[in-house]
Amino acid sequence: MTLEEKVAQLGSVWWIDPAAGGMAPMLSESIGPLPPWAEVVDGGLGQLTRTFGTAPLEPREGMRILAERQRDVVAGNRFGIPAQVHEECLTGLAAWRSTIYPAPLSWAATFDPDLIAEMGAQIGSTMSRLGIHQGLAPVLDVVRDHRWGRVEETLGEDPLLVGLVGSAYVRGLEGAGIVATLKHFVGYSASRAARNLAPVSMGPRELADVMLPPFEMALRAGARSVMNSYTDRDGVPAAADRTLLTDLLRDQLGFDGTLTADYFSVAFLQTLHGVAEDLGEAAALALQAGIDIELPSTNAFGQPLLDALAAGLVEEKTIDTALIRVLRQKCELGLLDPDWAPTEPDDVDLDAPEARALALRVAQRSMVLLANDGTLPLQPGARLVVVGPRADTYQAMLGCYSFPMHVLVHHPGVEPGLEIRSVREALAADHEVTYALGVPVVGGSDEEIAAAVAAARDADVCVVALGDEAGLFGNGTSGEGNDVATLDLPGRQEELLEALLGTGTPVVAVLLVGRPYDLSRQVDRLAAVVCAFFPGEEGAQAIADVLTGRVNPSGRLPVSFPAAGATHPSTYLAPTLGQLTDVSVVDPTALFPFGHGLSYAAATWGSVAASTEEWATDGSVELAVELGNDTDREVSEVVQVYLHDPVASVVRPVQQLVGAARVDLAVGEQARVRFTLSADLASFTGRDLVRIVEPGAVELRVGASSADIRATVALRLVGPTRQVRVERSLAPDVVVETA
Amino acid sequence: MTLEEKVAQLGSVWWIDPAAGGMAPMLSESIGPLPPWAEVVDGGLGQLTRTFGTAPLEPREGMRILAERQRDVVAGNRFGIPAQVHEECLTGLAAWRSTIYPAPLSWAATFDPDLIAEMGAQIGSTMSRLGIHQGLAPVLDVVRDHRWGRVEETLGEDPLLVGLVGSAYVRGLEGAGIVATLKHFVGYSASRAARNLAPVSMGPRELADVMLPPFEMALRAGARSVMNSYTDRDGVPAAADRTLLTDLLRDQLGFDGTLTADYFSVAFLQTLHGVAEDLGEAAALALQAGIDIELPSTNAFGQPLLDALAAGLVEEKTIDTALIRVLRQKCELGLLDPDWAPTEPDDVDLDAPEARALALRVAQRSMVLLANDGTLPLQPGARLVVVGPRADTYQAMLGCYSFPMHVLVHHPGVEPGLEIRSVREALAADHEVTYALGVPVVGGSDEEIAAAVAAARDADVCVVALGDEAGLFGNGTSGEGNDVATLDLPGRQEELLEALLGTGTPVVAVLLVGRPYDLSRQVDRLAAVVCAFFPGEEGAQAIADVLTGRVNPSGRLPVSFPAAGATHPSTYLAPTLGQLTDVSVVDPTALFPFGHGLSYAAATWGSVAASTEEWATDGSVELAVELGNDTDREVSEVVQVYLHDPVASVVRPVQQLVGAARVDLAVGEQARVRFTLSADLASFTGRDLVRIVEPGAVELRVGASSADIRATVALRLVGPTRQVRVERSLAPDVVVETA
Repeated sequence: MTLEEKVAQLGSVWWIDPAAGGMAPMLSESIGPLPPWAEVVDGGLGQLTRTFGTAPLEPREGMRILAERQRDVVAGNRFGIPAQVHEECLTGLAAWRSTIYPAPLSWAATFDPDLIAEMGAQIGSTMSRLGIHQGLAPVLDVVRDHRWGRVEETLGEDPLLVGLVGSAYVRGLEGAGIVATLKHFVGYSASRAARNLAPVSMGPRELADVMLPPFEMALRAGARSVMNSYTDRDGVPAAADRTLLTDLLRDQLGFDGTLTADYFSVAFLQTLHGVAEDLGEAAALALQAGIDIELPSTNAFGQPLLDALAAGLVEEKTIDTALIRVLRQKCELGLLDPDWAPTEPDDVDLDAPEARALALRVAQRSMVLLANDGTLPLQPGARLVVVGPRADTYQAMLGCYSFPMHVLVHHPGVEPGLEIRSVREALAADHEVTYALGVPVVGGSDEEIAAAVAAARDADVCVVALGDEAGLFGNGTSGEGNDVATLDLPGRQEELLEALLGTGTPVVAVLLVGRPYDLSRQVDRLAAVVCAFFPGEEGAQAIADVLTGRVNPSGRLPVSFPAAGATHPSTYLAPTLGQLTDVSVVDPTALFPFGHGLSYAAATWGSVAASTEEWATDGSVELAVELGNDTDREVSEVVQVYLHDPVASVVRPVQQLVGAARVDLAVGEQARVRFTLSADLASFTGRDLVRIVEPGAVELRVGASSADIRATVALRLVGPTRQVRVERSLAPDVVVETA
Repeated sequence: MTLEEKVAQLGSVWWIDPAAGGMAPMLSESIGPLPPWAEVVDGGLGQLTRTFGTAPLEPREGMRILAERQRDVVAGNRFGIPAQVHEECLTGLAAWRSTIYPAPLSWAATFDPDLIAEMGAQIGSTMSRLGIHQGLAPVLDVVRDHRWGRVEETLGEDPLLVGLVGSAYVRGLEGAGIVATLKHFVGYSASRAARNLAPVSMGPRELADVMLPPFEMALRAGARSVMNSYTDRDGVPAAADRTLLTDLLRDQLGFDGTLTADYFSVAFLQTLHGVAEDLGEAAALALQAGIDIELPSTNAFGQPLLDALAAGLVEEKTIDTALIRVLRQKCELGLLDPDWAPTEPDDVDLDAPEARALALRVAQRSMVLLANDGTLPLQPGARLVVVGPRADTYQAMLGCYSFPMHVLVHHPGVEPGLEIRSVREALAADHEVTYALGVPVVGGSDEEIAAAVAAARDADVCVVALGDEAGLFGNGTSGEGNDVATLDLPGRQEELLEALLGTGTPVVAVLLVGRPYDLSRQVDRLAAVVCAFFPGEEGAQAIADVLTGRVNPSGRLPVSFPAAGATHPSTYLAPTLGQLTDVSVVDPTALFPFGHGLSYAAATWGSVAASTEEWATDGSVELAVELGNDTDREVSEVVQVYLHDPVASVVRPVQQLVGAARVDLAVGEQARVRFTLSADLASFTGRDLVRIVEPGAVELRVGASSADIRATVALRLVGPTRQVRVERSLAPDVVVETA
């Protein structure tokens, strides 16, 4: 291959048909003017960016376009190598008419990795059917600050939960033949003051103990691609950090897949980070750090990279290294097979009944009942007033990476292409419902609030749907770029809530949110609170199922709801001095803690017992938890196991999740949950920055949430301090036996 | 010496006469029950804690007690070694009747190191006169989050300014023979979410480039003691961090003085950090890390340390190392001289006229005029209404380490022992003044607001004094432990301000604060804003001087005032992505930027010129700035020089202060300010964690604030990348020639 041909395999194109229109202006600017198509494909092309995810296309038409482009790509290079095709898939494939699943926070709220694996497989099979090879998900950033706009895209604030659910998704997606892309390596979620892309202040221990474990788990689950974080950490941008992308990710963690640049992040080394003079230097830095492919378009990994090569800023062997990875992956994907041909257009149902059923099941299991005074489930025949900015719009169900919120926002008037009901519509199937807006998500008038109050006075129960509109960079209140200064509900929603509470009618709040909000001022007066994290196309049905009691709510919080007057950032994963003490007047104790979630009927907890009091530093302990269902309906409990390590050589969180198991129990059923906990789960990064298990007293705290501990098991880690390498067991083995 | 005798020299006692009472309960708990006095002094004693700073004592009586205790200490050990005596001195000596100077944020606002050196010398001579040897100041923590309670104790958010002003104080204090104690080594001010003592997430580059420089400068200014930070950084508590306290502080920075534990921080290794099983292990960890002396009382460095020694947790030679440092310092202080005798009681005026005059001068030069529509200076004869929680109380003038706010708060009814006027009193000397409270600092009633509004309607000008009450751990709204969740003015003060603005009477806001607050919602309607950071016993006079125009305001902000809707933390020292960009909707642009401050009459700026366009990486550039005074009164300008480094091997702040000079100009006078800027000032910590000067284009931005740049000088650093070691020149040489 010529140098030009090699470099062409590392680039990509986001081909935006000017006639299609509707590109966010910022994106158009970043991509710049596109060369003629013939030039784009001349000599080869690494990746095709978002053929389906850019403008509303009928699936058959998208397939036709993709096949045509692939034929051009193949014809454009001497070797007949097609492009690798990637799309976004954070709430399902981001394509018109394709199933929209709940947003990732909802996946985490299910505490049900197997279900999420099933969802990943379903998403993957849809993508595969269309000729797509790679999906840019999951997001494995551990939430460190709830104010960040991208919280909705994450799996919450606990590394183990993120790892368990994230790897399950990877398992599903990869099982369907789609390259999963782990985002964002690493540290992005801790950007200063929750401002998107702002600098990250973090030392190596926090990085290793909090941010890395989900990636380690997901790599072992078979992810074949990783995407860099946009941020710098302690002054070094991830995209230019060889220590991170090569020494750590490849050499230590053994990753041999492709390293994909986050959109525009190579160019950002020049324009936003100021560590490169020009695009050529940016390309050289990124390539040397370990990035193989530039996305979404070839800004730097084209002529600028060739110039950098000519100037001696980068060696050809570095290009070869990236090229080999890119071609090896194309080979694995069958793209280099002699009989490869583009997927031919077809009439595909991207929202098949089984996908819709799965979307419903994920949504149902993700609903978190935060509080309930007995008003829920609603009495049959109750006259409802449904109020609020999120009550009468399908958009309330959708995360910022769903096709309608991500793309259709630039195509006014285009329908979502799927049936997505609103809370109002779903409740109307069971109840007499009147409706009043109250206020929009942001803004609103006194008159509208008064009208809602008047409507609420006449009802048996007021259901108020509050929360966010997902979107990007100023469209909406949650999502990429939509960072916030406080965790007060957006706009005048708190005012609306207060006005409704003043009516005396019981008020049930349904949150449709991308982050937790401060409900501390109202919680004691609310009849009930149900939290849904953008629950997808069947979300309204799931909400109605929970409100009416057809479904016993069973989701658990993957993020804490903040206390009144708490300062941020603050998550549950904090040592003693990160929690309430005598030395600061600020109390960060969560209003609803990590792992919290109520049910209409709950499991009965039986004995909790460990197999030993002495837990060898190189061994395992078996923990058995007995549960029963003495109620008259199905229940589902999430058994949570936290480790408390009171004395260690470095400061440790007061408690950290080391195991979780969702247990479904039919009426009268009993279960024994057996966790096999490797001592690796008690490991942390010691003084010498090596991961170790230290001997000493620890406690396993077993409960229904991080603040609802039902039993404490005192153990002693015994034996020598043991160094733990990448072979460590991050996930507990869990067996649930029912009888 | 026996082991017991050695260990005794490393301990201290905070002897609290039960009859004197008035100890904060938390402190009593932490100290625990005291043994009989004879036991305390048996075998020797390292330090006597706050003889003057614990309860109100007449100076003569304090001296008598101190002399008596010292005689007991001397008699109690075979070697006749007296104790080293320390006190707090953050706003002057914290003793009853002793001059109360402005709080440190005010020192920084003067941008006048020489004046602060003079103040340090005055404070030191007072302390020396009383038989005190060591002062626990200055605080060199660089502000990273304005929500932190201790912001008032700092010198602001720029490392150079903190270093210049902090070293000046050290120079003064040490020049008077008092051991200065640099606080807090290192990282304390970046505790998570501004919660006091919460974990610090910070990598080594940020530590080296932001937190360390003030300590390096103050060590070179002759500080003989350093105190550890309470916090952990990336999981390792400073008090147990040998890398920090020995490898860095002693071996790299060459410090050979005493390392003093912050109060209770050795015990906190067990009780709050969880890195020690018991006090003995805590003592061993702290001693091995490099701490020499435990303060304020011997919790761990007594029997627990002896037990740890017996158990082999620490070696005797480690104790010897600390002992030698302690005794060497006592030797330097003359405490081991054969003719040493305690200072005998005397009638001392702790608030001599020259001290009071100095307190006034510091206060006058620290007043920052933030905004002015021409209402200030007040017209002679203007009828004023003086309103607000800070208008009629002397306490508004005092920082949290002043004796009244620190100690007298536990002695209700005891007078401050000094004349300290309120804003109302000071203004009444020049104007007809009526007064209304409006609201207290926290709380208040609608009726009081209405009364203030009614009073404001009748006046020519309304002066509203708003802000904080300084205190500790829940007493007050600023000070140690008084962290906040938002930068809204405390309590109902914003509501009061809105009500006053509604009257139509011009409103002049006088802020008496320990941190910046959000004035964004009112600033356009305020006639003027004057900011005073707890300006001390002559603060009210200084405020009146500025309001009436007797003094031309000349202070400059050492901290930024936040923008509406900004997220925190946010300071001016931020790279591109820490400032407003397209990728986050949150705009952190300061309402009043770092370095901002107006005057009634200002200097005229003339030419700004550099001696060369090529700045050798091992050389200096001379920058000359011409100023003149064409006005009819004295002016004082602060010439600020910022470095902008557009491309570097790591991410750099958009601009950073590298020089500042306050220039006083008589009517008609002209000045040329010559800065000699070593290339060391352009150094930063590179990829390899070594401090370097890199070649490349840079700009010097010269102006009257960080956002009011009057001239930009383009330079090119030339020559090889140069490694900079501890010999680097952190402070520019500045010469001001007037004509």
